[in-house]
Amino acid sequence: MRLPRFLTPRTLVSAHCDLPCGVYDPAQARIEAESIKALAEKYQASSDPEFRTRALIIKEQRAELVKHHLWVLWTDYFKAPHFEKYPHLHTLFNEATKLAGAGGAKGSADPEVADRLLAKIEEISKIFWETKQA
Amino acid sequence: MRLPRFLTPRTLVSAHCDLPCGVYDPAQARIEAESIKALAEKYQASSDPEFRTRALIIKEQRAELVKHHLWVLWTDYFKAPHFEKYPHLHTLFNEATKLAGAGGAKGSADPEVADRLLAKIEEISKIFWETKQA
Amino acid sequence: MRLPRFLTPRTLVSAHCDLPCGVYDPAQARIEAESIKALAEKYQASSDPEFRTRALIIKEQRAELVKHHLWVLWTDYFKAPHFEKYPHLHTLFNEATKLAGAGGAKGSADPEVADRLLAKIEEISKIFWETKQA
Amino acid sequence: MRLPRFLTPRTLVSAHCDLPCGVYDPAQARIEAESIKALAEKYQASSDPEFRTRALIIKEQRAELVKHHLWVLWTDYFKAPHFEKYPHLHTLFNEATKLAGAGGAKGSADPEVADRLLAKIEEISKIFWETKQA
Amino acid sequence: MRLPRFLTPRTLVSAHCDLPCGVYDPAQARIEAESIKALAEKYQASSDPEFRTRALIIKEQRAELVKHHLWVLWTDYFKAPHFEKYPHLHTLFNEATKLAGAGGAKGSADPEVADRLLAKIEEISKIFWETKQA
Amino acid sequence: MRLPRFLTPRTLVSAHCDLPCGVYDPAQARIEAESIKALAEKYQASSDPEFRTRALIIKEQRAELVKHHLWVLWTDYFKAPHFEKYPHLHTLFNEATKLAGAGGAKGSADPEVADRLLAKIEEISKIFWETKQA
Repeated sequence: MRLPRFLTPRTLVSAHCDLPCGVYDPAQARIEAESIKALAEKYQASSDPEFRTRALIIKEQRAELVKHHLWVLWTDYFKAPHFEKYPHLHTLFNEATKLAGAGGAKGSADPEVADRLLAKIEEISKIFWETKQA
Repeated sequence: MRLPRFLTPRTLVSAHCDLPCGVYDPAQARIEAESIKALAEKYQASSDPEFRTRALIIKEQRAELVKHHLWVLWTDYFKAPHFEKYPHLHTLFNEATKLAGAGGAKGSADPEVADRLLAKIEEISKIFWETKQA
Repeated sequence: MRLPRFLTPRTLVSAHCDLPCGVYDPAQARIEAESIKALAEKYQASSDPEFRTRALIIKEQRAELVKHHLWVLWTDYFKAPHFEKYPHLHTLFNEATKLAGAGGAKGSADPEVADRLLAKIEEISKIFWETKQA
Repeated sequence: MRLPRFLTPRTLVSAHCDLPCGVYDPAQARIEAESIKALAEKYQASSDPEFRTRALIIKEQRAELVKHHLWVLWTDYFKAPHFEKYPHLHTLFNEATKLAGAGGAKGSADPEVADRLLAKIEEISKIFWETKQA
Repeated sequence: MRLPRFLTPRTLVSAHCDLPCGVYDPAQARIEAESIKALAEKYQASSDPEFRTRALIIKEQRAELVKHHLWVLWTDYFKAPHFEKYPHLHTLFNEATKLAGAGGAKGSADPEVADRLLAKIEEISKIFWETKQA
Repeated sequence: MRLPRFLTPRTLVSAHCDLPCGVYDPAQARIEAESIKALAEKYQASSDPEFRTRALIIKEQRAELVKHHLWVLWTDYFKAPHFEKYPHLHTLFNEATKLAGAGGAKGSADPEVADRLLAKIEEISKIFWETKQA
C-alpha cells in the first residue's frame, strides 16, 4: 500500500530530466490528466461551438503531455530491477499511455475516460512511491 | 500559515490550461526548480566537459519551464481580488521569474541560486494554497 | 507621449533572449495580436466550418505567443526602477496577458476583443520606448 | 548502388499520428539515430570548442526525437496481440529508449553508442515490418 | 512484398540537422504527407464532429512538419551547383511548401490535395536521390 | 526605392500565420538576427565558459527562428508574380536562410557574420515593402 503523500519525505523526490537530474514525480502526469477531466466536463456542459472546439484543441495538448510524462517515467526512472519486481509494469505503462491517446482521452471527451486514465496514473504512482522508499 | 498538503482536499486543485480548465498547481514550477538544483549540484561535482555542457543545456530548458509555469499562475490563476489582498504578489512573481532567468538559475550553476528560487516558489505556493481555501 | 517610430533610433532596440542579449521589441507581441485581429475578422466573415475550426486552432497559438512575448518583456526587460516609475505597470501587463488568454483573445473570436488587446500592447509599447530613451 | 524507390511498395507504410492516421514508419527513429552517429563522429574529429558545443546541443535534440518516435511506435502502433507474439518487445523498446537517453546517445558522444542504438532500432524495425506483412 | 532493408545501402543516406550532420532524407516529408492523406480520408469518411475537429487539429501539425522538412532540404541540403543543374528546383520547393500550407493541405481536407502534395515531394525526392548518386 | 518605415501605413502590414491571416513583417526575422549579433558580441567579450556555452545554446535557437520567419515569408507571403518581378528572390532567400544556418550564424559566433545576415534580411525587407505598396 502506498503511504499517504504527507508521509513521503520530499527529499526522496528526485530527477526527471535526462541529464539525469534524478527528480521524477508522477504528479506531472496526474495534473495534466486532471486538466483533461475538467476539460471534458466543461466540454459536455457547453453548447457553444467555439468553446467546444477550444476544449478539443487544449485536450489534445494536455493528453500529449500526459503521454510524455509517463514515457519519461517508464524509460528514465524505472530500471530493470523494477520491471522484475513489478512484472505488469510494462503493460501498465503501455495501457496508461494508450488511455491518454486516440483510444482514450484524446479520442473521447467523456469525463469517465479521464477517470480511467487518472486511475491508471494512480496505479503507476503507487508503484513509483513504493520504489522510492525501498 | 499554509495548511499542510495532506489537509488540502484534492478536489480543490483545479484548472491550469487556458480554456480555462481550472487546474493549477505550483508543484509544476517547484518540480522543475528542484531539477535545476540537482543539475547545478551535479554540474559542480563533475569535471567532465561533455557532462557539464549537457547540464547547462538542460538547465536552460528547465529554467524556461519554471518561468512558464509561474507566468501561467500569475496571469491565469490569480485575479484582481488576490492582488488587492496580497499587494506584494506582483513583485513576488516578477522576482521569482527573474530568479529563474539570466540573473538567476539560467545565468548561474550555483545550487544556492536554485535554493533561492525554490524559496520564492514556496512563498508563491503558500499564497496559492491560502487562496484555494478561502 | 511616445515618439513616432521613425524618431526612435534603431540602435536603441536591444536584448530579448535570456542571455540576455539585450534586444527587446514590443513589436513581437503586436504583430501576433494583429494576426489575431485578422483571424477574428476572417472567422466572422466565413461560414465554412473547416475554415472556422482552423481559425480557432491558429488563434489559440497566436494568443499564446502574445502572452509569451509580453511575459518576456515584463520579467526580462523591465527592472525595479521601471516598476517604481510606472506603478501601474504590473497591472498593465497582468491585464494585457489576461486579455490574450481565456477571458480575451483566446476565448473570443470578436475582433473588438483583439482591438482591446492591441490597445493594451500599445500602452506597454509607449512605456517601453520611453524607458529606452531615458 | 541504391535500389530504385519504385521497388519498395508504398502501401505497406502506415499511420503515425494520434488520430490515428495509421501511418507509422521506424525510419523516423532511424534517420535521427543516423544523425546522432554522424554528430558523434564529427564531434570526435573536431577540436574546435564551439563546434563541439554545437554538436552536443544538436545531439541532445536528435536523441529526444529518437525517444519520441520510438515511444509513439510502442504506445500507438503496437497492440496487445503484438506484445503476446513478441514477449521481449516491451524490454526491447525500454532498452532502445534508454539507449537514446542519458545512459546512451545523450550521455555519450561515442559513435559506437550510436551504433548500438541503431542496432536496437533495426531489431524493432524488423518486428514492425513482420507485423505489417502478417 | 517489401524488399529487404539490407539491399538499400545505408551510406547513401546523409545529414539533416544543422551542425550539419549530413543526414538528409525526403522520407521525412513524405511520411508526414502520407499521414495528411490518411487524415483527409478519415475526415471525409466520418460524420462525428469531435473526430473531424481532431483530424483538422492534427492535419495542421502534420502539414507544418511537411513544410519544415522541405525547407530544411531546400536550405541545408541543396547547394548552388544543384540549383544550377536543376533550374526549376526553387520553384518546385516553393510550390511544394505552398501545397502543404493554407492553399493546399492545411486549407483543404480533400485527399486529392494530399495526393498532389505527395507527387511534388516525389519529384523532389527523385532529384535528391540523383544528386546523392552523382 | 523603399519608403521610410514611418510612411508605410500600418494597415498595410498583414497576415503571417497560415490561415492565412495576411499579417507578415520581416521585422520578426530582423529582431532575432539583431539578437544573434548581440549574442555574438557578448560571446566574444566574455571568457566565462558557462556564459559562452549559454550564448551558443541561445544563438542556435535564435538562428532557427530567423530561418523559420524567412521560410514563412518565402513560402506564404511571396507569390508567383513576385518571383517573376524579382528573379533573384529565390536565391536571396536561399542565401539568407543558409546564412542563418551551419554555414553562417549557427556555425559562427563572429558578429560580422551576423551583420551579413542582417544585410540579407534588409534586402528582403526592402523588396517586401515594395510589394506591399504596389
